Amino acid sequence: MINELVEKIKRTGAPIVVGLDPTLKFVPEHIRQKAFTEYGETMKGAAEAVWLYNKAIVDAVHDLIPAVKPQIAMYEQFGVEGLIAFQRTVEYCKEKGLIVIGDIKRGDIGSTSEAYAVGHLGQVQVGSSLCRGFDEDFVTVNPYLGSDGVKPFIKVCQEEKKGIFVLVKTSNPSSGEIQDRLVKGASKDGQESADRPLYEIVGEQVAAWGEECMGNSYSYVGAVVGATYPEQGKILRKIMPKAYILVPGYGAQGGRGADLVHFFNEDGLGAIVNSSRGIIAAWQQERYAGYGAENFADASRAAVIDMREDIAQALAARG
Amino acid sequence: MINELVEKIKRTGAPIVVGLDPTLKFVPEHIRQKAFTEYGETMKGAAEAVWLYNKAIVDAVHDLIPAVKPQIAMYEQFGVEGLIAFQRTVEYCKEKGLIVIGDIKRGDIGSTSEAYAVGHLGQVQVGSSLCRGFDEDFVTVNPYLGSDGVKPFIKVCQEEKKGIFVLVKTSNPSSGEIQDRLVKGASKDGQESADRPLYEIVGEQVAAWGEECMGNSYSYVGAVVGATYPEQGKILRKIMPKAYILVPGYGAQGGRGADLVHFFNEDGLGAIVNSSRGIIAAWQQERYAGYGAENFADASRAAVIDMREDIAQALAARG
Repeated sequence: MINELVEKIKRTGAPIVVGLDPTLKFVPEHIRQKAFTEYGETMKGAAEAVWLYNKAIVDAVHDLIPAVKPQIAMYEQFGVEGLIAFQRTVEYCKEKGLIVIGDIKRGDIGSTSEAYAVGHLGQVQVGSSLCRGFDEDFVTVNPYLGSDGVKPFIKVCQEEKKGIFVLVKTSNPSSGEIQDRLVKGASKDGQESADRPLYEIVGEQVAAWGEECMGNSYSYVGAVVGATYPEQGKILRKIMPKAYILVPGYGAQGGRGADLVHFFNEDGLGAIVNSSRGIIAAWQQERYAGYGAENFADASRAAVIDMREDIAQALAARG
Repeated sequence: MINELVEKIKRTGAPIVVGLDPTLKFVPEHIRQKAFTEYGETMKGAAEAVWLYNKAIVDAVHDLIPAVKPQIAMYEQFGVEGLIAFQRTVEYCKEKGLIVIGDIKRGDIGSTSEAYAVGHLGQVQVGSSLCRGFDEDFVTVNPYLGSDGVKPFIKVCQEEKKGIFVLVKTSNPSSGEIQDRLVKGASKDGQESADRPLYEIVGEQVAAWGEECMGNSYSYVGAVVGATYPEQGKILRKIMPKAYILVPGYGAQGGRGADLVHFFNEDGLGAIVNSSRGIIAAWQQERYAGYGAENFADASRAAVIDMREDIAQALAARG
C-alpha cells in the first residue's frame, strides 16, 4: 500500500491528504437541515449530516488527491451512529480510488493492540469465517506503550501489505511536554552518548521497525511529525530516511508551505501533508467565501488546488 | 463519580474491577453456537456471542464488585457490530449498579480529545439537542500528546462529575521503552535537579491535574500503574497521593496479591485492581475447571471471591 501511495502522489503531483474531520459547525445549514428533517436532531441525524457532507467533498476532490484521513474521534463523538458514518466514509473513499488513512491513534498492550490491528487493518476470525472490520489502508499508532503496542500492527501490515504512521512529534502546542524531554544518553563501553529529545529515540525505533517491512523505496512504517515543528522535522527526516512522514498541522494549526520542505527527501517524496479544516471548511474562509454555502464542495476543490500550488512552490524554491 | 467508586469499594470490600475483555476463545462453545445459529459466523454473530457472555458474567458477579472495565478494542475488532455490543455492555452494567470504566486509552490534540471526551463521558450538541454517546463513568487516557490532549477530558469530568485514569506506567513488558526513560533534570536557579524516569514526571502531572477536580478524599483524575511494576507503584503512590490508581496486570499478566500493597494508601484505599482473563475466563483454568463450560459464570464468581481474599490477605499482612 505504501507503493500505491507513492504512485498516487507522483500521479497527482499532490503530496496531500484531506483530513475528513467533520464537526457539525463545518456542515452547511442546508445539509444539516436535510439530515435532521429525515432523522431528527439525534445521533443518527448528526451522522447522516456528516456523511452527506463528506460525500460531497470526496466527490469534488477525489481526482486531485491520493488519500484522505478521517479522524475517527469526530465520528466516535456521535456514538455507534457516528462510527457507521465513519465506515461508510472509508468504504466510499476506497470506491473512489482513494487511499484511506484512519487517524485512530490507537496503542495498547500487545494482545489489545492486536485486536485494534485486526479490526482496522486486518481480518478477525469468527468461527470458520474471516471478517473485515473498518478496513482502512493505513492507521496512526500511539507508541507510548513501547514495542509491544506497535508490533501487532506491524505484523498485520506485513500480512496485508498495509501501513501505519507512528506518532513521533505531534503538531499540538503541548506535544513537547513528553515528546521533547531530554533523555539521558546511554553509557555504552565506557562512552557516554549525548542527551537527546525523546522524539529522536522514537524516530529511531520507527526506522528500525520500518526495516522489517519495506515497500519498493519506502517502508510500510511511517511517522507523524507536525508541520508546526519544522526544525524537528529536519532532524527526523534524516533519522528515518525510509519512513513516509504524515505531516499534520498545515493551515489552520499554523504550519506554512515554507515549513514543509524539511519533511521531504531530495526526491521530492517522503512526506504527505494533511489539511483538514483548511480544505473541508474552506467555504467558511474569507478567501473562498465567494462560493457560498451551497457550493461548499467547490470551495474545498479550490483549496486543494491552492494547497498543491503552495507546496509545489515551496519545494521548487528550496532549489 | 470518584466518591461513588470509593463508597462502593468500601461497601463491597473489594477493590476490584472486572475487565470485560472478551475474545471469542474465552466464550464457551454453547454460547458461541447460540449466537452463530441466530446471526451466522459474522461480525453480528461475534458481537452477540460477546454480549451473551458478558451478560451472564455480570449477572453472576455484580453484587460482589464496584466496577467493570470493558476494553473497547475487544469490541472494536468486530467493527460497528462490536461497538454496539460495547454500548449494550456499558448500559447493562450501569443498570446493574456497576461503575463503568471504559478502557479506551484515547488521547489526541486538543480539539480531537474534546470529541473523544464528549463522546465517551459527556454530551454532544446536535442542533438544539444534547445527546449522549457511550456514556461511561470513567475512561483511560493516553498522555503522550501532553496537556492539550488530557485537559478536554478533565473539563468534561468537571461538568459531569466523572473521572479519568491517565496512563502513567503500563503493565506490559515493553512499557519501559518510553515510560522509564531517564529524563534530564531541569536546571533551575543554578540548581540541577536529579534525572528521573518519565513515568515520575507524568505522575506529577497527574497529581497537578487532579488538584483541579477533587472529590471528597480522592481526585477525579486517577492513574494507571501496572501490578507488574510494584517498585514503581510504591514511588508513584507517594507522588500522587490523591489519585486513585487503576492497577492492571494482576493474575494472567503476572502480578500477585503481595505486589499490590504498594499501590494502596494507609487507609486501605487509593487503588482498584483489574483482572480480566483471570475472572472472565476462570472456567478455562485448572483451578475452576470443576464448574464446566456450562457454569462459566459461576467460575467467574468464585474467581472474584478468591481475588478479593488474596488482596485482603496481602493488605492485612503488610501490618
